[in-house]
Amino acid sequence: MNNFEFYNPTKVIFGKRTEEEVGKEIQDRGFKKVLIHFGGTYLYENGTLDRVHKSLSDCGIGYVDLGGVVPNPRLGLVKEGIQLCRKEGIDFILAIGGGSPIDSAKGIAYGLANDFDVEDLLMGRFTTNRIAPLGCISTIAATGSETSNSMVITIEEGMLKRSYNHDCARPLFAIMNPELTYTLPPYQTASGATDIMMHTMERYFTNTEHVELIDRMAEGLLVSVREAALLAIKEPDNYNARADLMWAGSLSHNGLTGTGRVSDFASHKIEHEMGGMFDVAHGAGLCAIWGSWARYVYKVNPARFAQFAVNVFDVPMDFHDLEGTALKGIEAWEDWCRRLGMPTSMTELGIQPTEGQIEEMAEKCVATGGGHVGFFKTLYKDDVINIYHMAE
Amino acid sequence: MNNFEFYNPTKVIFGKRTEEEVGKEIQDRGFKKVLIHFGGTYLYENGTLDRVHKSLSDCGIGYVDLGGVVPNPRLGLVKEGIQLCRKEGIDFILAIGGGSPIDSAKGIAYGLANDFDVEDLLMGRFTTNRIAPLGCISTIAATGSETSNSMVITIEEGMLKRSYNHDCARPLFAIMNPELTYTLPPYQTASGATDIMMHTMERYFTNTEHVELIDRMAEGLLVSVREAALLAIKEPDNYNARADLMWAGSLSHNGLTGTGRVSDFASHKIEHEMGGMFDVAHGAGLCAIWGSWARYVYKVNPARFAQFAVNVFDVPMDFHDLEGTALKGIEAWEDWCRRLGMPTSMTELGIQPTEGQIEEMAEKCVATGGGHVGFFKTLYKDDVINIYHMAE
Repeated sequence: MNNFEFYNPTKVIFGKRTEEEVGKEIQDRGFKKVLIHFGGTYLYENGTLDRVHKSLSDCGIGYVDLGGVVPNPRLGLVKEGIQLCRKEGIDFILAIGGGSPIDSAKGIAYGLANDFDVEDLLMGRFTTNRIAPLGCISTIAATGSETSNSMVITIEEGMLKRSYNHDCARPLFAIMNPELTYTLPPYQTASGATDIMMHTMERYFTNTEHVELIDRMAEGLLVSVREAALLAIKEPDNYNARADLMWAGSLSHNGLTGTGRVSDFASHKIEHEMGGMFDVAHGAGLCAIWGSWARYVYKVNPARFAQFAVNVFDVPMDFHDLEGTALKGIEAWEDWCRRLGMPTSMTELGIQPTEGQIEEMAEKCVATGGGHVGFFKTLYKDDVINIYHMAE
Repeated sequence: MNNFEFYNPTKVIFGKRTEEEVGKEIQDRGFKKVLIHFGGTYLYENGTLDRVHKSLSDCGIGYVDLGGVVPNPRLGLVKEGIQLCRKEGIDFILAIGGGSPIDSAKGIAYGLANDFDVEDLLMGRFTTNRIAPLGCISTIAATGSETSNSMVITIEEGMLKRSYNHDCARPLFAIMNPELTYTLPPYQTASGATDIMMHTMERYFTNTEHVELIDRMAEGLLVSVREAALLAIKEPDNYNARADLMWAGSLSHNGLTGTGRVSDFASHKIEHEMGGMFDVAHGAGLCAIWGSWARYVYKVNPARFAQFAVNVFDVPMDFHDLEGTALKGIEAWEDWCRRLGMPTSMTELGIQPTEGQIEEMAEKCVATGGGHVGFFKTLYKDDVINIYHMAE
């Protein structure tokens, strides 16, 4: 086990009707005027926004709404939000939604607390440990951004999808009501569930040895999400399936499943370039890539892939064929993706990048990492090109 | 799954030589003078205290040492610590050791921040959300007090072992170096490991339904601790076994494994009275009690005990005999305790309470809970007496 730090101060308020507690949480912290930041109009339609407005008003807290966040949230709206906050004297940012509005809110909060442009933060020209106070109401079980230290924003010019990670970006509180995810369409439910699996899998596939405790806990999480995802697709208003997905979403990306080990995250970076160029749902993009990444790298450590096969997907261990067992685990993952209606190739995802586009994505993918990406197996530009081709 | 809150802001700094970072952690937070609070003289002998002194001095931080904490820490030393802090102008409390010095430090920190006596807090005559700043260096994998919200102190008069739990008591940071646990004698190592298991088991044995995610993660933790404990007894300087125990100690008692469910904690309360009266090692006391508690209550929910047997102790499921499978799990736990050198009865623990003492312990046990204890099965005074007799 490697040395590590683990810091996860976000207060989680989880369960039925918990969005009605938002006013009290903000009042307890002494804030007066809130920017409510969100994406889809479904929050108007299902009454969530009304309940949040009422909770804030009941606590004497003012608010301004800023909707319009799109998947793969854009820098332009972040800049608009910063200007609006300054004009309106906002002292607290409240995101409602999934990873996109939460990340967009983090962008606004960084902008408010610093005197440089958020683009400079995303492009690595500045770093900071300062951010304006923010909290969130999560309505999608997926990214875990509600408790994570990460933010991913797309810069429109060149459609560059870039991230900045700092512990200061962990929200002060995260309100999670699984009921709010009932109306999520099956494709988004599945895309969220696969993203949750992948956040733990990016940490699970490691060459760090002697990490049994977190391996066992991660496998427990993965098995639960595997089952809860299938159930949530079949019964969209199954509270317990939705609750397992939602809590697993946070536990997959709050750092716990990465403690004591080197994480990989190559698949995420390979997908990020697709998301930037083609605007695909993140989880679906990961599904289209992961099997190809796995087949490209599994020989580095077939035992770990076999462990995944046996302990997460109940593949019978073939004691005479470790690599065969490993490959059956990759197939089991792809079968599970298909049962969820998720793609296992770029064609199934609905994109067919040209040779030039593949070259461009691979170039961008390795650029910020000094010419390579991933830790399970170090991948250079040509490796990434090979993986994109395998995933066609 | 039930509604829940989860708040665990303690920064964990985990790994080899991390105690040398203590000065920086305190300096970063702006504190100037530290009370170093601990128990055994082994901290002098193994050089830990020297390294902590040096780290503080290197950062220009003053300090005063206060040793002498005993297992089942006493209120008297807490009061002495409060007076010393006031006299010396201390602004930060640093505990070094296991649950006893950390809980004693929490008592001192409560005393410094409030104008009532800590005894009143323990006896339920006051509540508070105020505590002086504290951090810790954990040297024993056991109670998880290094990240928990709980404090257990023994009031000398009547040897009353009493607790107070509040989120404000979670330390600002917890430094954990598994190497510092190498010299712990086998009995203490085993007692710590069983306490870790029990912190998760007290939460695992619940009648709350549909808690699959945390069940799977908890089972993963329990299986890891089961193996790591045996290995640490056999090879005291096995870093990875010690590291698994240490990290599992925090994860078992930081609230995670109790999210979304009603916890039990009857065994802890039954043991606390033994600990108060006979001064036994806490984990050993739990081992002496748990099998009897389990046999007394398992018929309330034999399926959950069978799940424990199969998923934690690899007992083969007898599909025709759920109760038989459940009982085999209890036996497997007791076998594991014996392999660790832990007792499974009060006689093996070395105590033989009289009928009057059993009556007195049972009376005290249920007194603070309004005449009963536990949630898996509600236990009244006579039930507790029955369990003590079963455990003789």
